[in-house]
Amino acid sequence: MGDPLAEHLGAVGLIDHHVHGYWLHTGSRRAFENGLNEANTDPLAAFDSAFDTQLGFAVRAHCAPLLGLPAHADAETYWAARSAVSDSELGQRFLRAAGVTDWLVDTGFGDGVSDLPTMAAGTGGRIHEVVRLEAVAEHAAAQPGDYAGAFDAELAQRCRGAVATKSILAYRGGLRGDLSEPTAGEVRAAAQRWRAEGGRRLTDRVLLRFGLHRALRLGKPLQFHIGFGDRDCDLDAANPLHLLSFLRQAGETPVMLLHCYPFEREAGYLAQAFNNVYLDGGLAINYLGARSAGFIARLLEMAPFRKILYSSDGFGPPELHYLGAALWRRGIHSVLAGFVRDHEWSPADAVRVVDLIAHENARRVYRLE
Amino acid sequence: MGDPLAEHLGAVGLIDHHVHGYWLHTGSRRAFENGLNEANTDPLAAFDSAFDTQLGFAVRAHCAPLLGLPAHADAETYWAARSAVSDSELGQRFLRAAGVTDWLVDTGFGDGVSDLPTMAAGTGGRIHEVVRLEAVAEHAAAQPGDYAGAFDAELAQRCRGAVATKSILAYRGGLRGDLSEPTAGEVRAAAQRWRAEGGRRLTDRVLLRFGLHRALRLGKPLQFHIGFGDRDCDLDAANPLHLLSFLRQAGETPVMLLHCYPFEREAGYLAQAFNNVYLDGGLAINYLGARSAGFIARLLEMAPFRKILYSSDGFGPPELHYLGAALWRRGIHSVLAGFVRDHEWSPADAVRVVDLIAHENARRVYRLE
Amino acid sequence: MGDPLAEHLGAVGLIDHHVHGYWLHTGSRRAFENGLNEANTDPLAAFDSAFDTQLGFAVRAHCAPLLGLPAHADAETYWAARSAVSDSELGQRFLRAAGVTDWLVDTGFGDGVSDLPTMAAGTGGRIHEVVRLEAVAEHAAAQPGDYAGAFDAELAQRCRGAVATKSILAYRGGLRGDLSEPTAGEVRAAAQRWRAEGGRRLTDRVLLRFGLHRALRLGKPLQFHIGFGDRDCDLDAANPLHLLSFLRQAGETPVMLLHCYPFEREAGYLAQAFNNVYLDGGLAINYLGARSAGFIARLLEMAPFRKILYSSDGFGPPELHYLGAALWRRGIHSVLAGFVRDHEWSPADAVRVVDLIAHENARRVYRLE
Repeated sequence: MGDPLAEHLGAVGLIDHHVHGYWLHTGSRRAFENGLNEANTDPLAAFDSAFDTQLGFAVRAHCAPLLGLPAHADAETYWAARSAVSDSELGQRFLRAAGVTDWLVDTGFGDGVSDLPTMAAGTGGRIHEVVRLEAVAEHAAAQPGDYAGAFDAELAQRCRGAVATKSILAYRGGLRGDLSEPTAGEVRAAAQRWRAEGGRRLTDRVLLRFGLHRALRLGKPLQFHIGFGDRDCDLDAANPLHLLSFLRQAGETPVMLLHCYPFEREAGYLAQAFNNVYLDGGLAINYLGARSAGFIARLLEMAPFRKILYSSDGFGPPELHYLGAALWRRGIHSVLAGFVRDHEWSPADAVRVVDLIAHENARRVYRLE
Repeated sequence: MGDPLAEHLGAVGLIDHHVHGYWLHTGSRRAFENGLNEANTDPLAAFDSAFDTQLGFAVRAHCAPLLGLPAHADAETYWAARSAVSDSELGQRFLRAAGVTDWLVDTGFGDGVSDLPTMAAGTGGRIHEVVRLEAVAEHAAAQPGDYAGAFDAELAQRCRGAVATKSILAYRGGLRGDLSEPTAGEVRAAAQRWRAEGGRRLTDRVLLRFGLHRALRLGKPLQFHIGFGDRDCDLDAANPLHLLSFLRQAGETPVMLLHCYPFEREAGYLAQAFNNVYLDGGLAINYLGARSAGFIARLLEMAPFRKILYSSDGFGPPELHYLGAALWRRGIHSVLAGFVRDHEWSPADAVRVVDLIAHENARRVYRLE
Repeated sequence: MGDPLAEHLGAVGLIDHHVHGYWLHTGSRRAFENGLNEANTDPLAAFDSAFDTQLGFAVRAHCAPLLGLPAHADAETYWAARSAVSDSELGQRFLRAAGVTDWLVDTGFGDGVSDLPTMAAGTGGRIHEVVRLEAVAEHAAAQPGDYAGAFDAELAQRCRGAVATKSILAYRGGLRGDLSEPTAGEVRAAAQRWRAEGGRRLTDRVLLRFGLHRALRLGKPLQFHIGFGDRDCDLDAANPLHLLSFLRQAGETPVMLLHCYPFEREAGYLAQAFNNVYLDGGLAINYLGARSAGFIARLLEMAPFRKILYSSDGFGPPELHYLGAALWRRGIHSVLAGFVRDHEWSPADAVRVVDLIAHENARRVYRLE
């Protein structure tokens, strides 16, 4: 309609290279609102409402029409309309509307959310698994015998059909400090200690480092939680610059920096500095709502365009799986149309970069199809 | 005039939740210019002029008309017109023009500036006191007997009519490091040491921590200087992320992060992560002048809209008390009108968020009226 | 042509206060592309192209016309046209087109690039030398006898005709930690140690600190690499806030913070906080391409307008010497025109600030002419 870039963005299929399941049972409105706050681990205060945030406003602006409501319907109306639809129907409706051809699903944090078959059945998209390294470690701790061997066996088995691994080191002590490969003896000793303590929730640094280096050796892309997340993660310790020494040793295995806010410029620098480093805006795009275009623009600074990917990081309310795509399409349109208007980019360049970020980079790096 | 949001912003009454007195005696033009530089503790260099900054340009753009001059009057003309008006008249004229209904005045740094009765008499606004914790400590050090008891008595007495406490920990060693509550024995020993050294300018870490936890117990909002200030404060050590452990222990007492530049995105994250954390842009808005809209926009990223407040942090030249309000009204109009134009927000949402930040959030959290 | 600010910016002569030589022999297309990536020290990956970056797009947009091509000519066409022109002609064509009257050339990193006479002959601009402190130290290490004396003699000799010194401390261990002046005994001992190890590539902290303080005493502006550079430099350790203690001791010698990305707001704060601190955007402007206007705007936040300078930091492909100027002219036009349109600045103020940054500040601080 006079704007080929907008038309292209309306139609382009996305690869959502980092996402989780959607809720099978939403529960109360309060539970829903807690699901719209990423950082807070307490229940929302009585005086507050997650609808009065950029994310809440974006849900009302972009998700309301999928419930048959006008854009910007108020919170009560939105909640009422949403409550009249089953969780299963909500999941399918929002995920289908995202225009995603491939979902790369991190199955490491899955209580109460859709599993892979459910996502496959409902959405029409292809499903690929991302294996969480800390879950592999916790499985290995529960096995008898050699820890390293158990880890390797489990990693190999889980990764047979998987496309990537993922580390939440940011939540298990942070990215700061030595991330070199431990020796076999150090791993044995650490595993013994950890098992003796019960072998639950891995925070042992030696074993975390071990897992990362096993993932490097595997060669499949290794995703890292970076920046914005819940407050159990010390945001300062999730700055990707702490990975510098690790990246200097990482060889050729692709390393994917996820979300990155408010360190997206540092992440972009790393994507320029290392042939194997990539980044996305992940869930920050959802949480920034009307402010997401500015963030998407900053992702397009130092990072080479063949190193930037799309993801929603949707978890819980299926609105997030859809909204990430809707906001990304709008935001990158606004940014690239500005570049074209200022004669800094050609219109054809803008379309080409959209394709790179929407799916080409992900298809190449994850070897999809 | 065709723009209901602009009309609303022109009329809405503000609560300036963190401000100081204005100068009773300006002195020379050089002294005035030094008053327009926050960070520098030396006199301005001979080659420089504080008029050649964003703040200086903003003073000429927005304050000149209140002196009967055209906008952008040059520095010499501005200074001449200002010098023809008494300090008392300047104070009243600029403060009245700010459209502020309530001033929450930090009285901890008050040499040469208006006291509470003067501000009350001149401005037509209600005056509320904010008590500086370090001043309470320094008073307690000068009392005989038990330090903790003297601190508690002084804090209780000063806070009877006050609405909040304030900490300038950022200037007394910074926010880094352990901020847990010290034991009674540690406090006793530290007080003894400090008193033996003369009991002036508190920098003892144990006693600073003690004061913070007493303020938490009091339950009135606790304001923290964050980020941008003068160079006696190590900017890096004023990053609000250093407060993470403290906030995890802070319970329900509201914690107000002031100014925040250039860490406003980190502060916004904390406001999402903790039910009791709030933020403002404070004096950074004045110092950013023509660039303040972008900063105001970043304050509207991760922070829930019920957690954002307005303040000028005006101190010294009464231009600052007015200019903070003028720039905030213009800046947030530009930001929110953009959201509405892009169909991300409804016009009614924009008006509602203006009211939250202008006065509703402050009224609720400080329990005004 | 209706826009006096644009006309002024099209014509204003620039002082490029930090730049290097241009390539005398480009080599292969791959070598050229590696020259368009600052951060990566490895050869670019096979799947990647430096043309698919903001810098690559900016080269196609702004440099193509100087090769007789339309703006946005594709990479193959650009490379073919460029290959048809000699390196010498490329250097002269791009440097002349930059509209630079004075080049301040850092000669510390000069293999394979134009020397001062070549730059003088080719460009029509005046050439001034900037002396690298680490090169002075490495020369002194190779002399017999007292290290400090050899350093001082070499510094004095090299600086006779030079306008400034430069430190790449960011690449030699980073800016963190003690930067106080070492004692004569410490210097002697450190020099002995270093000479015993061969006296190559200086990373000894004592001798680095010694060099900085010698440069301070000399009184000529001291340039620091800050922020964005190649990955041998730990970006985190190149944050200018680490210089705080050093700046508190630096006296009146001008300290120039170069590039600064992504710490430009921190650098601007330091420029406000210290009478002798200045900043520029350096090579970050080139690497940000279509995003450079936003960066230029952030340079105009806390920094007084008499403390901001222009540089390209061009090294290697002479496109960079031209593009820095072209992007700066476009970017600052867009930023300042916005301020004027919003009635925050007067048109005359905008022209005056352009002159300050383009050449007046550099002329004053480097005492040119």
